[in-house]
Amino acid sequence: VHPVSRGRNWGYGSRVPPRDGAVVLDLHRLASVGDYDPELGTVRVEAGVTQVQLHDFLLARGGAHLMDPTGSTPDASVLANALERGFGHTPHADHADHLVGLEVVLPDGSVLRTGLAGTPGAAAAAAHRWAAGPALDGLFLQSRLGVVTSATVQLMPRPAAARSFFFSAVPGTGVADLVDALRPLRQAGTVGSAVHLANAYKVVSGLQRYPWDRTGGATPLRPEALAPLAAGLGVGPWSGSGALYGSAAQVRDAARQVRRALRGRVTTLRFLDDRRLAAVETLARRGLLPGVLGRGVGLVRPVHGLLMGRPSPHAIESAYWRMREPFDAARAPERDPDRDGCGLLWVSPVLPLRGRDAAEVDRIVTRVTLGHGLEPVVSLTLLTPRSAVAVVSLLFDRTVPGGDEQAAACAADLTARLAAAGYHSYRPAVPARRDGTGLDEASARVVAAVRREVDPAGILSAGA
Amino acid sequence: VHPVSRGRNWGYGSRVPPRDGAVVLDLHRLASVGDYDPELGTVRVEAGVTQVQLHDFLLARGGAHLMDPTGSTPDASVLANALERGFGHTPHADHADHLVGLEVVLPDGSVLRTGLAGTPGAAAAAAHRWAAGPALDGLFLQSRLGVVTSATVQLMPRPAAARSFFFSAVPGTGVADLVDALRPLRQAGTVGSAVHLANAYKVVSGLQRYPWDRTGGATPLRPEALAPLAAGLGVGPWSGSGALYGSAAQVRDAARQVRRALRGRVTTLRFLDDRRLAAVETLARRGLLPGVLGRGVGLVRPVHGLLMGRPSPHAIESAYWRMREPFDAARAPERDPDRDGCGLLWVSPVLPLRGRDAAEVDRIVTRVTLGHGLEPVVSLTLLTPRSAVAVVSLLFDRTVPGGDEQAAACAADLTARLAAAGYHSYRPAVPARRDGTGLDEASARVVAAVRREVDPAGILSAGA
Repeated sequence: VHPVSRGRNWGYGSRVPPRDGAVVLDLHRLASVGDYDPELGTVRVEAGVTQVQLHDFLLARGGAHLMDPTGSTPDASVLANALERGFGHTPHADHADHLVGLEVVLPDGSVLRTGLAGTPGAAAAAAHRWAAGPALDGLFLQSRLGVVTSATVQLMPRPAAARSFFFSAVPGTGVADLVDALRPLRQAGTVGSAVHLANAYKVVSGLQRYPWDRTGGATPLRPEALAPLAAGLGVGPWSGSGALYGSAAQVRDAARQVRRALRGRVTTLRFLDDRRLAAVETLARRGLLPGVLGRGVGLVRPVHGLLMGRPSPHAIESAYWRMREPFDAARAPERDPDRDGCGLLWVSPVLPLRGRDAAEVDRIVTRVTLGHGLEPVVSLTLLTPRSAVAVVSLLFDRTVPGGDEQAAACAADLTARLAAAGYHSYRPAVPARRDGTGLDEASARVVAAVRREVDPAGILSAGA
Repeated sequence: VHPVSRGRNWGYGSRVPPRDGAVVLDLHRLASVGDYDPELGTVRVEAGVTQVQLHDFLLARGGAHLMDPTGSTPDASVLANALERGFGHTPHADHADHLVGLEVVLPDGSVLRTGLAGTPGAAAAAAHRWAAGPALDGLFLQSRLGVVTSATVQLMPRPAAARSFFFSAVPGTGVADLVDALRPLRQAGTVGSAVHLANAYKVVSGLQRYPWDRTGGATPLRPEALAPLAAGLGVGPWSGSGALYGSAAQVRDAARQVRRALRGRVTTLRFLDDRRLAAVETLARRGLLPGVLGRGVGLVRPVHGLLMGRPSPHAIESAYWRMREPFDAARAPERDPDRDGCGLLWVSPVLPLRGRDAAEVDRIVTRVTLGHGLEPVVSLTLLTPRSAVAVVSLLFDRTVPGGDEQAAACAADLTARLAAAGYHSYRPAVPARRDGTGLDEASARVVAAVRREVDPAGILSAGA
């Protein structure tokens, strides 16, 4: 029995069970949102509730609270993403960290509730993470010990003021400089959002398809070939985004600090709020912005939206990078990379929030992916005040013979080389072992003991 | 075998094993602090490291990071307090939430490391909470599944600017008003510290002994008798403290917001930084402050210190409330309530961060404690953006025959009545059951399965 919520775990195995012959337990009809508490900012979601559904629910209740969207499809499950330790963009980016009171159906049919949700009538069941005694929530993250059917999501209150910001690094400013410049602002809480850095490959893949004509059909696209392409699109070596939240005065002061930290390191640094974005878009529609800026608005809108709690399908388009059909951002809402034969594997090492680690990960990724005939399409999310996650998108065309094998070999090699350097994946793909590849022997014994207790017949995601 | 770190778990059982005949495993010589990372703000502490030791260590390394002290003795173990889900005052008040990479000696002698600390060479072991796969950290909170010998503490960077604030509610302003006024500031992050509210009983017990003379030796001290006493000391029905951190401009703006939120609800609202406090103290020493203010300075200094990351013994003095010897705050550093026969039991329900819940807890506590002949000595800590913990101090004199039994009966009754109303203790006393009194049946089964695996002979804190 292999549970899926919405089956949109793209890049990490989608809805595929670990082995053939499994019964897929499809939870998408567990789609109710409820118990919204506007004072405390908590809401209960079932496993099948999508990002857009939660967003619309909150908006219909007055919009006093934001959800934190991932850059993936608006149709992905909120709960499943959090259980896989997915992340987004706002101060609530670390989704697992804002999940409490899991309701879990164990493989033996009994129901387990974590935290105070396990105590009937507990007033703080949605408000407080812990009950007295050991906490079991962690057992159900990235595991196969139970089917989580619902949980409470702790929401961010809509701030009095909010501004997103966007920047592009000057040539010669590497990812290490940016990370070191931004770390103090993340640690002091000045920048409340996760900061998202993307290399030129990543940005270009969101603007167009693989340049088959320029390269005469050859792959991969080498840095020398990318450079003129990126320059023509006005894309620097690294681009970044983040947001500031608070009172108007606090946001103004935070913007000053961001400007100071990035001075000399970036060519452009723009701050946007909803009103300013609308004004810029009006100019762009009337053709009053130069070409590069005009295209930039199209990229900026969805990212600004994510930072303001609005899910967007936009990022999906980059999964089509190696496909032969024309680029069409407007089609993003109808995209389904699984259906369309897009190859997408994510390898996502976690690293300390330090420039030299970011540079080292970037070096390993560039060498290994190009060596396997794929591009180093990299984003780096400054997720917590002390750690970042690099998401390497291995983009390929599944309809090309041998494409799957080539990408799988690249993923395996990349994962191994990163791990050898100390950078381990934050998130295993579903077909991989689910009992904690990163756990030591004693921890693995504990997990096995729990599994024997709750799943004596070994029916849940067997083979994982 | 019953492990204790420093044995200062005052109010929750101190160093006493759950049953007679136990071997006490004293960890106080595991006292090394190390692996300080000034870039990431992490440090590794062993089980015996005290609050003052960590504070002094950080100061000697340049003071770039703060530790979060509890109001308990500076000689309490940092790690043991965090494992018991203890809390302090700064933005890192929730101690368990800033602990990663536990090293645990299991009762069968094997060693378990949680998170990335279980993977040799993981670069982000101190920086990131999670490894891939299920997380086991929660199993070792408030449990008896292993002896945690060391862990990494994630530290707060010293802010550019910081101000504590202190206020006293106007008569007629109840705890409900204060909680509702402060909730939006906690949720928006404007007030980054935990906010601490104390009723008049709590404040008076920090200023003097039980007024044996005024009451002719009778107990408890009824509200009618407390009122003139509190008025004479300039103590309002509820007093509060908290702090603001950030850039100078952000702290100024946050102070404006605190003033606006509390307007009309408080008589005094004072903001202090280290420099201003020193100036006020100079005035007080020269006798240039009126009596009430002069006494206030003595109370304010240690709380300001806690909010700035400096441990203080000051709060201990209130454990002597019912003792017959004279009040002497200056003696706090030598105090040991266990040695001196002070009776101290803490009952500490968790509640949603909502005025009506705070008022209801206060009503129950007042009725039940007075009914058992003890005073409702209450502090309420606005611990997280959505929840608060009320700490009810049952203060008695263990040298009085029947004192223990009276207090134990009060604690049991109070715990039961609070739980019946939905307010469950965040923290069990050590002699109580350690397998999760708040857990549902399925969770208890999982914990029991883990215990069978790691402690087949049932040797750890047996009888709990």
